[in-house]
Amino acid sequence: MIKVGIVGGTGYTGVELIRLIANHSEVQIEVVTSRSNAGTLVSDVYPNLRGRIGLAFSEPTLEAYKNCDLVFFATPNATAMLQAQVLLDAGIKVIDLAADFRIKDVDLWQKWYGAKHACPDLLAQAVYGLPELNREEIRSASLVANPGCYPTSVILGLLPLLKNGLIEPSSIIADCKSGASGAGRNANVSTLFSEVTESVKAYGTAGHRHLPEIREILKTLNVDSNLVFSPHLMPMIRGIHSTLYADAIGSGGDSLDKAQRFFEKAYKDEPFVDVMPAGSHPETRSVKGANTCRIALHYLEENNKYVVLSVIDNLVKGAAGQAIQNMNLMFGLEEEFGLQSLGMMP
Amino acid sequence: MIKVGIVGGTGYTGVELIRLIANHSEVQIEVVTSRSNAGTLVSDVYPNLRGRIGLAFSEPTLEAYKNCDLVFFATPNATAMLQAQVLLDAGIKVIDLAADFRIKDVDLWQKWYGAKHACPDLLAQAVYGLPELNREEIRSASLVANPGCYPTSVILGLLPLLKNGLIEPSSIIADCKSGASGAGRNANVSTLFSEVTESVKAYGTAGHRHLPEIREILKTLNVDSNLVFSPHLMPMIRGIHSTLYADAIGSGGDSLDKAQRFFEKAYKDEPFVDVMPAGSHPETRSVKGANTCRIALHYLEENNKYVVLSVIDNLVKGAAGQAIQNMNLMFGLEEEFGLQSLGMMP
Amino acid sequence: MIKVGIVGGTGYTGVELIRLIANHSEVQIEVVTSRSNAGTLVSDVYPNLRGRIGLAFSEPTLEAYKNCDLVFFATPNATAMLQAQVLLDAGIKVIDLAADFRIKDVDLWQKWYGAKHACPDLLAQAVYGLPELNREEIRSASLVANPGCYPTSVILGLLPLLKNGLIEPSSIIADCKSGASGAGRNANVSTLFSEVTESVKAYGTAGHRHLPEIREILKTLNVDSNLVFSPHLMPMIRGIHSTLYADAIGSGGDSLDKAQRFFEKAYKDEPFVDVMPAGSHPETRSVKGANTCRIALHYLEENNKYVVLSVIDNLVKGAAGQAIQNMNLMFGLEEEFGLQSLGMMP
Amino acid sequence: MIKVGIVGGTGYTGVELIRLIANHSEVQIEVVTSRSNAGTLVSDVYPNLRGRIGLAFSEPTLEAYKNCDLVFFATPNATAMLQAQVLLDAGIKVIDLAADFRIKDVDLWQKWYGAKHACPDLLAQAVYGLPELNREEIRSASLVANPGCYPTSVILGLLPLLKNGLIEPSSIIADCKSGASGAGRNANVSTLFSEVTESVKAYGTAGHRHLPEIREILKTLNVDSNLVFSPHLMPMIRGIHSTLYADAIGSGGDSLDKAQRFFEKAYKDEPFVDVMPAGSHPETRSVKGANTCRIALHYLEENNKYVVLSVIDNLVKGAAGQAIQNMNLMFGLEEEFGLQSLGMMP
Repeated sequence: MIKVGIVGGTGYTGVELIRLIANHSEVQIEVVTSRSNAGTLVSDVYPNLRGRIGLAFSEPTLEAYKNCDLVFFATPNATAMLQAQVLLDAGIKVIDLAADFRIKDVDLWQKWYGAKHACPDLLAQAVYGLPELNREEIRSASLVANPGCYPTSVILGLLPLLKNGLIEPSSIIADCKSGASGAGRNANVSTLFSEVTESVKAYGTAGHRHLPEIREILKTLNVDSNLVFSPHLMPMIRGIHSTLYADAIGSGGDSLDKAQRFFEKAYKDEPFVDVMPAGSHPETRSVKGANTCRIALHYLEENNKYVVLSVIDNLVKGAAGQAIQNMNLMFGLEEEFGLQSLGMMP
Repeated sequence: MIKVGIVGGTGYTGVELIRLIANHSEVQIEVVTSRSNAGTLVSDVYPNLRGRIGLAFSEPTLEAYKNCDLVFFATPNATAMLQAQVLLDAGIKVIDLAADFRIKDVDLWQKWYGAKHACPDLLAQAVYGLPELNREEIRSASLVANPGCYPTSVILGLLPLLKNGLIEPSSIIADCKSGASGAGRNANVSTLFSEVTESVKAYGTAGHRHLPEIREILKTLNVDSNLVFSPHLMPMIRGIHSTLYADAIGSGGDSLDKAQRFFEKAYKDEPFVDVMPAGSHPETRSVKGANTCRIALHYLEENNKYVVLSVIDNLVKGAAGQAIQNMNLMFGLEEEFGLQSLGMMP
Repeated sequence: MIKVGIVGGTGYTGVELIRLIANHSEVQIEVVTSRSNAGTLVSDVYPNLRGRIGLAFSEPTLEAYKNCDLVFFATPNATAMLQAQVLLDAGIKVIDLAADFRIKDVDLWQKWYGAKHACPDLLAQAVYGLPELNREEIRSASLVANPGCYPTSVILGLLPLLKNGLIEPSSIIADCKSGASGAGRNANVSTLFSEVTESVKAYGTAGHRHLPEIREILKTLNVDSNLVFSPHLMPMIRGIHSTLYADAIGSGGDSLDKAQRFFEKAYKDEPFVDVMPAGSHPETRSVKGANTCRIALHYLEENNKYVVLSVIDNLVKGAAGQAIQNMNLMFGLEEEFGLQSLGMMP
Repeated sequence: MIKVGIVGGTGYTGVELIRLIANHSEVQIEVVTSRSNAGTLVSDVYPNLRGRIGLAFSEPTLEAYKNCDLVFFATPNATAMLQAQVLLDAGIKVIDLAADFRIKDVDLWQKWYGAKHACPDLLAQAVYGLPELNREEIRSASLVANPGCYPTSVILGLLPLLKNGLIEPSSIIADCKSGASGAGRNANVSTLFSEVTESVKAYGTAGHRHLPEIREILKTLNVDSNLVFSPHLMPMIRGIHSTLYADAIGSGGDSLDKAQRFFEKAYKDEPFVDVMPAGSHPETRSVKGANTCRIALHYLEENNKYVVLSVIDNLVKGAAGQAIQNMNLMFGLEEEFGLQSLGMMP
């Protein structure tokens, strides 16, 4: 039985971790911390947990985690970096669901996150927790940087094309649509129901923190792509739909078939990536609550461009589900353990 | 041309006032105040006003209103009471869209609103601004208490039954469903999109501020009803649907026809109350953006009960539209002026 | 391993059955039938099932079910009654998620459902599948009538009050709010997105098929209640919120405490009924995707009335989840098996 | 007073025409036809019109239009073409809100619309009703092809860049997001509430009928662009958000300022195009119910690309509002007449 702690259990990724772990027979939640809610029952904040999670929130002291094998940080950015070293020193593994360890280049991180990094020395050992890319490194990692939600959908949608040299990296445009839960559970006028519903808007068009993350990961594939990343806010709770455009290299009638075969081959053994038939249109609701990335490939002959449609649930494959997938790998469990629930339709 | 000021223009009732007044050819907005946004263009906060409303928010000083004929308070409760006297002394009429002048009984007000009333002397002269009830008093009023959204839909749905002695007052149950805009534009976790959408809940079951308001107004009709009022939050922006249950007095095959005739007669000349054929089911969307209260009457023979369905847009007939209707009356304009837009379907 | 067939697998209760059974280790789906989609992969209609459910829809012939231990009818009303006898004769158990076997009084059924009942002889042996009421009978039943969604939430909310004689049966008013999935997956203008969203309406105020169902079940408790049942359509997919009003019998300061204790006692050992602290306000989203009925009790002293708030997911505890709970009982499995997923918040 | 007829008044563009005309003091609706609803009151189908529109639907015979000065076709594609010639011969002007007269190339039209065109001779005289492009031709036109919703938002977003040679036409990608009302009021499983809400999907990625329309209009500007057009369905009723990507020609620090000035100049005198400050993010809700196209320009220096964000209400500037704007021009009225309502926020 793996004993885990969850730091920041009042946010949406925190409660989603708890919901998923409640289905995971090999994991036991030892402690859930929250500075603002210490003493309150977790199920008073999230009544869906009533009858199953009897814990109260604890103060986020290091003492609180002493019996844990693993601590998840479901905290705002620039929080995990303050505690990770001490936990690691105590032999406790760490998965950070925020951005503190995703970008190796400290200066780049500091520029985009507007803070001084508290433990730059740890960056080298942190593994970017995208199992489809770094499965082996994750297995032996002590510190995992859980990927951002947008990067997960974008990178999984591009990998087979980039690895096989089928697209021109400099031509990539990622037009991404996200549900409102990605903005977190913070008191904020701009994410009120009456502000978000029945409307669509772009944001961060000139620059969003997930852009340097995507670029840096692509560099690890020797792809130096100055891609365009353009996020949009949708009137729904969960889901990211990434529409990815890129110029095909070469051309010919067999382009789509060939690329489709590369997708199918690349993800053949992946438990959480589903390649649909070419020309399909995945819906975000098909992965609602599930740890699946569902992908469909299109080819526009007149433009000699590929269009990839990639959908995930931002709170699952884009956050808590992927964190549990990483945990399973880090502790030698079946990768699918606790993650087999299907998407909820309708 | 009537010159008006709007205090608290950043809230939802404030912007709705501005939207409606922009269609009103006899009114000019002189000043819109907001302490927190002073100096900012109103259209920077509400881009729907771009190109039509060039004003910036002003500080809410009394000086700011000196050229106004009328000031609307679209403020939180316990704000208008601090400034009303000075404005009235300066010959400026006042319509308060909050609750400061709705309840004549100071002790009752202080109990429910948790504050000391700043100008109890004004309560006697304040007129409850429900034109269907108090049209003549409103015409000559200087200070109008604009009704609450729930009370508007409940009272209009009950009036013909109560006035004609068709129901037992003590038996009334008002089960009311409201959109989220009624909670205002405040940074608040409980009204975030991801908290409100795809869910329904009751709130204030044991007691809500609109209950004493309804009871006191019914008393002015010599109806002493200890009615039950039970509000619910719906996943939509605008709209209140009140389902009103009451025991019929007497009985007989003609109950529905007779009561229906009383409804039709009561509202025959009312520009903003639409009585549907008996047995209809009004939808809140049929009044979205319109100053209409749409009502349908049902009779349950087995139970000898009437069920009245009454729908309004909480921001229009339940707030800003009714305020303009009151203004029209106070200044001798056509009552419908500026309020003739139809509900938006779909 | 129990082998089950699902008739009518293209509807919402059908796909929800499949989603839940995919988490149930003791059950295997043998066949899913659909006349209109025979030959199509189930996962082509519901892509959330891709990779897990390889079956194609079959023609709904009796032959198709021959290897089944149990057949679920997730069909329109008046369908199961045409096939139930043959299945039962072949030793196959039947759970009907529609209304064919819910009402014992054939004339009453025929009046409300507008059809001639095809197998009135089976009504006597059909067990109303509300485990909290009929657990033992369900264990030995061959034919279970799965309760309606509204009746489930209403009856569970009233049981402790009625059984302990705390309320006046004739005074009950059930004001119920349901998500749109209750209307099924039929091409219908009135349930289009643009017709349902951002609106609330009542329907069936004068009479709804779930009313005789509730009344008949209450009669089995020796309660002859002419209750009022008033359904409303909400702009959300899943969820029923029943607000139940009833006059207390007797009175006194201890009414709420006493009644609350009866609720807690009544449901103490129930795995799927959660009694919240008195005065709470359950949200439908807290049971989204879960087989839970969550209940809170209020008492209005001035009116000497109880108000019970009862929420379920209409597709789970109100349909497919309850059907699986019944199946577990009928086959001697743990009642919670396959039904332990928590509600999804947000 | 202009007398108009509306063919196909039961659809969403039909009722929106009626809603807008009810605010237009110079227009009188003479007849509204609907084959399926002939005899029914228009306000029985759309209760928002109760008390204002007393008409019943008529059979769509030519006789019905004999007193009209203008007939709007708010019908499915391939309907207006069957009646336009006879109406024009009778001196009645025609605005088709469907696609019958948008594409001049008959073969291209027949290929995309899968029908034989009934009156190819009329195509030459039909004017594409985008006032910002063809104002003078519209003034003297008898037959106007009202533009598609997507093309309106895309073309208005691109015009200043294309006319001033600032972008490479072959590089244009239009990633467009639309509300569900664009799919019309047809009984259809795929647009049910429970299918659309809480989900996002692309559709028509490989080809959509609005693509040849956009291309042909761009050709009239001597722009031969093989642009990519990729529509997506959003969980909202109204609104289109077009995100337009294009490579800048040339470069330099002043690119954004210069282009912004071209936008401001191009639309300076346009009553219904609002150019926001560069770098803004327009929300679709800011134009909900309004005839406005709101545009913001971004420039990505690293990519030397422009990104234009263009929002409209698909039922207003994308359909009925633009039709009334065209009518105003055709009859010598003020262009803004009847179209001055502001967007509804919230």
